Amino acid sequence: MSIQIPRGTQDILPGQVEKWQYIEQKARALCNNYQYKEIRTPIFEQTELFLRGVGDTTDIVQKEMYTFEDRGGRSLTLRPEGTAAVVRSYIENKMYGDPNQPIKLFYMGPMFRYERPQAGRYRQFVQFGVEALGSQDPAIDAEVISLAMKLYESLGLKNIQLVINSLGDKESRLAHREALINHFQPRIGEFCSDCQKRLEKNPLRILDCKKDRDHELMATAPSILDYLNEESKRYFDKVQEYLTLLNIPFTVDSTLVRGLDYYNHTAFEIMSNAEGFGAITTLCGGGRYNGLVEEIGGPETPGIGFALSIERLLAALEAEGIELPVEETIDCYIVTLGDKAKDYAVKLLSDLRAEGISAEKDYMDRKMKAQFKAADRMKAQFVAILGEDELEKEVINVKQMATGEQEEVSLSQLIPYIKQRTS
Amino acid sequence: MSIQIPRGTQDILPGQVEKWQYIEQKARALCNNYQYKEIRTPIFEQTELFLRGVGDTTDIVQKEMYTFEDRGGRSLTLRPEGTAAVVRSYIENKMYGDPNQPIKLFYMGPMFRYERPQAGRYRQFVQFGVEALGSQDPAIDAEVISLAMKLYESLGLKNIQLVINSLGDKESRLAHREALINHFQPRIGEFCSDCQKRLEKNPLRILDCKKDRDHELMATAPSILDYLNEESKRYFDKVQEYLTLLNIPFTVDSTLVRGLDYYNHTAFEIMSNAEGFGAITTLCGGGRYNGLVEEIGGPETPGIGFALSIERLLAALEAEGIELPVEETIDCYIVTLGDKAKDYAVKLLSDLRAEGISAEKDYMDRKMKAQFKAADRMKAQFVAILGEDELEKEVINVKQMATGEQEEVSLSQLIPYIKQRTS
Repeated sequence: MSIQIPRGTQDILPGQVEKWQYIEQKARALCNNYQYKEIRTPIFEQTELFLRGVGDTTDIVQKEMYTFEDRGGRSLTLRPEGTAAVVRSYIENKMYGDPNQPIKLFYMGPMFRYERPQAGRYRQFVQFGVEALGSQDPAIDAEVISLAMKLYESLGLKNIQLVINSLGDKESRLAHREALINHFQPRIGEFCSDCQKRLEKNPLRILDCKKDRDHELMATAPSILDYLNEESKRYFDKVQEYLTLLNIPFTVDSTLVRGLDYYNHTAFEIMSNAEGFGAITTLCGGGRYNGLVEEIGGPETPGIGFALSIERLLAALEAEGIELPVEETIDCYIVTLGDKAKDYAVKLLSDLRAEGISAEKDYMDRKMKAQFKAADRMKAQFVAILGEDELEKEVINVKQMATGEQEEVSLSQLIPYIKQRTS
Repeated sequence: MSIQIPRGTQDILPGQVEKWQYIEQKARALCNNYQYKEIRTPIFEQTELFLRGVGDTTDIVQKEMYTFEDRGGRSLTLRPEGTAAVVRSYIENKMYGDPNQPIKLFYMGPMFRYERPQAGRYRQFVQFGVEALGSQDPAIDAEVISLAMKLYESLGLKNIQLVINSLGDKESRLAHREALINHFQPRIGEFCSDCQKRLEKNPLRILDCKKDRDHELMATAPSILDYLNEESKRYFDKVQEYLTLLNIPFTVDSTLVRGLDYYNHTAFEIMSNAEGFGAITTLCGGGRYNGLVEEIGGPETPGIGFALSIERLLAALEAEGIELPVEETIDCYIVTLGDKAKDYAVKLLSDLRAEGISAEKDYMDRKMKAQFKAADRMKAQFVAILGEDELEKEVINVKQMATGEQEEVSLSQLIPYIKQRTS
């Protein structure tokens, strides 16, 4: 009996993987342009990190983590998101002491959440994210948002929408928090048990509740924007000014919240408006987290970042009918006739490849006709045909597949011949 | 208190990560040349896969796996190696039915083994590997070996050594197995308890034992090469002939074994001979595994592959004193003076980047002198200086850092100016 892939995970196979490679290359090039450097943290971390860095009242921590003990009895957790580990590494490697500030990092890799698998939602999924640590210039908020938008645009997405909000600074949030408690307290019994717990711990998250979203108190809940103090208002205005300067359209939605206590000021999401994209429209989420580094044990440090899922990005591309330019071809396929030619082709193939020419030959003892078919399937631009006669005369017949033209070329000239015509 | 990285794992930080990126890019380009396509399998698999695909008598399975139950009670294991999952995917996706044969795949990603951490050995490490499934042409054995050798060569390694062996086909192995049992049986009491268990289960692995390697029976043990039948001998001869044709030097070592039952015919390792490289000299190991696909539940299929660790490759480069060409520079750093110029620079920076120019500005409210220092640290090729006067005149002062030359350029001409001088 054969063994199956774990539930909620997927293999990315040739034919699909080229799209991933293309997107990753775009993201890397963009990060290089924007001077975000790659960081790679381990697949698992000490569980404690996520309790502190994601928050122990969140669904992620309470229901969705892959937590286990290693053979030494340590509690480890497969990372459910990227920011906590980047901040752990930032502190552990004392990046706050680096003269280059802000520290601008990006990551790309698998994350793990034990959720009910459904269309576009996997238990292992890939996130690309950036973090800028050490600056509280509103221009860096705009830069971070702009990087995400640029990635989507550069891949051809048209139907995307940026939504922003401000959660304000600590003072503004406390004032808003009190208003929220006063608003919901009298009728909290009408809300779900999760919301009842949220009321004292983190009333902002009530606004995020999927079960109670139609309750009449939701629409009339006090807006954070009415509680921003002067400084927070100025900060938010400046972020909007920069976005406008960068020609990035956005809408402000005061109900957009990030659930964690240390999120503040800028919060944003990018959604797909494409028809038929499905229920989960958020492609990318991010925001400012000026309290997180302290929470994880480092010095007071401002920070902002986003994370986006490559799976959802691919789904958005599909919903908009966008084909990425990833057609696979090879430069040259060597067809052989007879044992001597077959052996000679082993060396010839190696020589072509050593010159950077993508090349292939048969390894299945196929007849000539079947070799030609294989060359066709691989979309070979040139087929080089070698029989014992040719070998004796030290020539090879080269057929250009697009035109059908065929030429006899000296064996010693095959490499320059192909190179000239394929580069 | 701050939280540390899990024991035996490492962060790969900017400054180091560029080497990884460089090596990965080389490996990807090589695979494209050789027509090996990328496959990505999940980080974890059902535990059963590794019991069957790695073998339940191996150290990996008995002592080193990260095995845990998910919230649904399934036993999962972080992959300790790459081949079993590739074969699982090959079967599950019925790749044996693809008209393109052999199926040539590569993978690159983290693997996990709970071992005692030491220099060059991590609990999470990265492997690059290839698998060619479906062909039993000895030329594909030579191709697989040649790909690994080419990667090392292309990175500049000089002191590497290829060692090959043949484990023969099933008939040859059974004859050799019997000879091994007869050889060790009378004095097996002098061997370690692991070897005593191996005697019946897999006597070949006794030759691999680290504890008993100096026992006098080791040196006199029957050699597999004396037990190869005609067909196996012919196969091995042909592999050697192709390696010679490809100018790949090698030595034959009849004690080189791969421990698993379904390994057969070609086995190989590539070692570093570099002085001071340390105790673990193996950089790459591979071989033919014609029985593995069946073992995991698929149809009878020949296969061969290798895996190599990027960590060891980096260590070998270091031992040979090889610096990879990964110096980081940026095209342009914008220095500003005054609030208006600072705001304007947000847009200018974005415009530069949109044209593919890597560019940066200050986000720390630094004074001019400190901005110049930051530009120096980032190895900016050009520094563009914008004050309120320049802004009014719609010009910008551009300094080429290598020459110290400074020119006033029209703001609208900045992009072509930089582009011409950096591409």
